[in-house]
Amino acid sequence: MEAFSYYNPTNLVFGKGTVSRLGTLTQAYGKTILLVYGSGSIKRTGLYDEVISQLQSIDATIVELAGIEPNPRLTSVRRGIELCRSEHVEFILAVGGGSVLDAAKAIAAGARYDGDVWDFMVQKATIQDALPMGSILTLSATGSEMNGNAVISDWETKQKRAFGSKHTFPRFSILDPALTFSVPRDQTVNGIVDIMSHVFEQYFTLTTNAPLQERLCESILLTVIENAEKALEYPHDFEARSNLMLCGTLALNGGLISVGTLDDWASHGIEHEISAIYDIPHGAGLSIVFPNWMKYVYRERLDRFTQYAERVWGIERGSKSDEELALAGISATRAFFTRIGAPATLSFYDIGEENLDVMARSAVLFGPIGNFKKLNQQDVREILTLSL
Amino acid sequence: MEAFSYYNPTNLVFGKGTVSRLGTLTQAYGKTILLVYGSGSIKRTGLYDEVISQLQSIDATIVELAGIEPNPRLTSVRRGIELCRSEHVEFILAVGGGSVLDAAKAIAAGARYDGDVWDFMVQKATIQDALPMGSILTLSATGSEMNGNAVISDWETKQKRAFGSKHTFPRFSILDPALTFSVPRDQTVNGIVDIMSHVFEQYFTLTTNAPLQERLCESILLTVIENAEKALEYPHDFEARSNLMLCGTLALNGGLISVGTLDDWASHGIEHEISAIYDIPHGAGLSIVFPNWMKYVYRERLDRFTQYAERVWGIERGSKSDEELALAGISATRAFFTRIGAPATLSFYDIGEENLDVMARSAVLFGPIGNFKKLNQQDVREILTLSL
Repeated sequence: MEAFSYYNPTNLVFGKGTVSRLGTLTQAYGKTILLVYGSGSIKRTGLYDEVISQLQSIDATIVELAGIEPNPRLTSVRRGIELCRSEHVEFILAVGGGSVLDAAKAIAAGARYDGDVWDFMVQKATIQDALPMGSILTLSATGSEMNGNAVISDWETKQKRAFGSKHTFPRFSILDPALTFSVPRDQTVNGIVDIMSHVFEQYFTLTTNAPLQERLCESILLTVIENAEKALEYPHDFEARSNLMLCGTLALNGGLISVGTLDDWASHGIEHEISAIYDIPHGAGLSIVFPNWMKYVYRERLDRFTQYAERVWGIERGSKSDEELALAGISATRAFFTRIGAPATLSFYDIGEENLDVMARSAVLFGPIGNFKKLNQQDVREILTLSL
Repeated sequence: MEAFSYYNPTNLVFGKGTVSRLGTLTQAYGKTILLVYGSGSIKRTGLYDEVISQLQSIDATIVELAGIEPNPRLTSVRRGIELCRSEHVEFILAVGGGSVLDAAKAIAAGARYDGDVWDFMVQKATIQDALPMGSILTLSATGSEMNGNAVISDWETKQKRAFGSKHTFPRFSILDPALTFSVPRDQTVNGIVDIMSHVFEQYFTLTTNAPLQERLCESILLTVIENAEKALEYPHDFEARSNLMLCGTLALNGGLISVGTLDDWASHGIEHEISAIYDIPHGAGLSIVFPNWMKYVYRERLDRFTQYAERVWGIERGSKSDEELALAGISATRAFFTRIGAPATLSFYDIGEENLDVMARSAVLFGPIGNFKKLNQQDVREILTLSL
């Protein structure tokens, strides 16, 4: 394992009824609050009313920014930044899934920056400060509730880019698994794939001698696999929803499960290119891409893939060669994704070859991607072709 | 799993050569620094000189408090508090193992409190504020480097008591596994037992439906078991020392591996009574007590002990009954402790029956202890008798 720093100051407040602590938790940060949310499902579930009542209980002035998109857009972020300035916002509260949280983080950083917020996404500037923000999570998926990362799309230029900063960790995140009862089946599936993919990006590493980190990754994968079908069959199963929610948070928790190892993120890079153009759900894109990435790279470190097959999927070696065992693990991944209803091919979304070159070129705009295997434009093109 | 809050703001700086970051990390907190350390081994290893040179590089005024005991004493804590007041200390730097860190935490809290610091240990007062403190860890054991807990002994009244507060998390902790190369064999052994015991206290719980937390616990136990003998045989094995050090930190990391579950801590309570009177090393006391606690309580939840036997010790069920399987796991624990050279009986330290009643009475001073099984005075006496 290599040297590392790990810092994660988010106060995680987890459990049934924890939204009732919102007022107390918010109080420390100011009275003028930007409330950021998505399509309005929080109004249907009653969560919106509960949030408003909590904020009224501390005499907050509420400024609203609704309509954050599933792949949150730069235009919404800019609108939020303007609101922060014109209304003298002191605290940002995100209520929703990862997209809403990511938008809120970008707004928080942009509001304390004189230039254009997109500078952070294209590495023209580094975040030096941000408004404090907190969150109420309604979807188990991105881990955004306990890290400083965000992904934003510029719909005009068809670019989807990420940033990360210690200044954009939520001050608190409220996670009530019961809030995920009403998440539709397809979004639950996409969340499950997203959580597993976050672990894959960290688990498939060339770093050796990190046995604890490997087991932490495997712990999350095993727990997600064990609970996924329960949550899909019984959407109100509090324990299954709780376990998925905690897995989602720890899977991308400022890098906790992969401290001191070199993570990959090529598959996320490739998926971002797909959803930047076609606006498909991130989890669905990952379901399509990840097993193909695995097939393309597994020979780089066969022992990691044989360990994956044995420990995560419980596949017995028997008379299998290393290669056969590794491939069995990859097949098990695809079979699981298919079983829970996640797509396997780009054609599922009527996506053909038309933009493969554009996507491959854009994916390596800042150089080769990934660490398990460094992928150049041709490599990315081949993985996309496998995904057709 | 139950509702919980998790908050851990310590900046963990891990890896070879990371002491070189001390100056930069300290700078934010002030110029007058109380340097707390133990018996002076840091002078023999050269670490002391490196620390002084780092602090001089930021023009710090250094106030020294040396001689913190292995079971840190209230008298030393009081001396530290006086120094903080008389020298207007702004930041406390602990350099050493868990005892030194614990003393520093108590000093940090006491320096910002008008009453007597012992009030925090006997629940007469709650910590409201503390001087900022940071640490350089030289021993893998207590997890004190990334939590807000401390254990202090009042040698006059033979009491050993713990406190915990969000105000006493180290602001940063520097962990260079190479600093543990010179830790003597017996202290390495005690550290290993301490780490495993911290996991046991959280793993043996009556809380159900916490599969991720169970696996996180098992991940640490498996990794410690895998690396313990390597580190003992080759004290300069950087990877083995690294893995133990990371396990120690995550084992007692503000409760990360047991979020939402009810932990036990009875064995720690019992051990504290032993070392409060006899001043034996904490890890040695735990090695004596823990397998006996297991034998005394395992019937409360047999399935947890059968899972422990199978997943942690790889014991195959075969034709064993649940009870036989559970007992095989407990025997494996004792066998492992013995194999690495940890003591199994109080008689190893010439401790007889003379104070069993005193210890049993003191252990339950504030009521029954433990959660897996609530232990009253008679229960504690029986576990101590098993330990003779």
